[in-house]
Amino acid sequence: MQPIGIIRTPYRNKDECPIQGSYSPDSKGVVEIFRVHEEGLKDIEIFSHIYLIYYFDQAGKIEYVRPTFLDDEKHGIYASRHPCRPNGIGMSIVKLLERKNNLLEIACVDVLDKTPLLDIKPYIPRHDIIEESSEGWIENVKFREKPAGRE
Amino acid sequence: MQPIGIIRTPYRNKDECPIQGSYSPDSKGVVEIFRVHEEGLKDIEIFSHIYLIYYFDQAGKIEYVRPTFLDDEKHGIYASRHPCRPNGIGMSIVKLLERKNNLLEIACVDVLDKTPLLDIKPYIPRHDIIEESSEGWIENVKFREKPAGRE
Repeated sequence: MQPIGIIRTPYRNKDECPIQGSYSPDSKGVVEIFRVHEEGLKDIEIFSHIYLIYYFDQAGKIEYVRPTFLDDEKHGIYASRHPCRPNGIGMSIVKLLERKNNLLEIACVDVLDKTPLLDIKPYIPRHDIIEESSEGWIENVKFREKPAGRE
Repeated sequence: MQPIGIIRTPYRNKDECPIQGSYSPDSKGVVEIFRVHEEGLKDIEIFSHIYLIYYFDQAGKIEYVRPTFLDDEKHGIYASRHPCRPNGIGMSIVKLLERKNNLLEIACVDVLDKTPLLDIKPYIPRHDIIEESSEGWIENVKFREKPAGRE
């Protein structure tokens, strides 16, 4: 796999980066799509939200069971979105503010600066909103700040 | 990247496979996670829905702008979820029915049999349900059967 672009954000390291973009509407960034892929953006500007699929290039050691940013219990890596995971694929839903040619201005961003972008998909509410879904172990967890030093 | 497992479904080719799993609650399959990754499944069974991130290993030629299964207008590949795309990453939200050790029984499946699995992430309604999101170009499209022979 090769990057199709770069995600640019104000977050130079993990301590600066929000846990979840949905809690951070003022967290803004710019997705730069490499020119060779620009044609594939046709019509993207009429979506309000998009998925960014990217590569966690700053991730550390993989541990299959570990605490998360949100709580101190240990959960399996596939039952969390922890960045240190096999294949290192990250996924974030962001708000698409504006497209300017090969640049996408976005909000609700929880991604480190210079993260390599692998794919973009539209967020399609009729498919992606699943009202009857459960919160899993997150149900009883209150939002908190990221613990200092926790990867 | 290396597969972490295999997705097994009844769909041997694209004509048999549903367009969208959310319209196909009776479409069932089994995700087999390779044993080396099984520990990472801890707690996944308490989520009702999960994202499967996989590799479109049967995809054909990439065209940046093309018609989709849902309509005949041409849209950019990043404004659709067409399988023939740079990096070939697919994403589906499926219902998790039951976990049996390293096997996940799933429903609402729109994936071809033997598709290589790259990652699993939990569907977390408080982050992933975006009520104010727009449908983009899909807003005025009615659900239809997949046109025969369309890739």
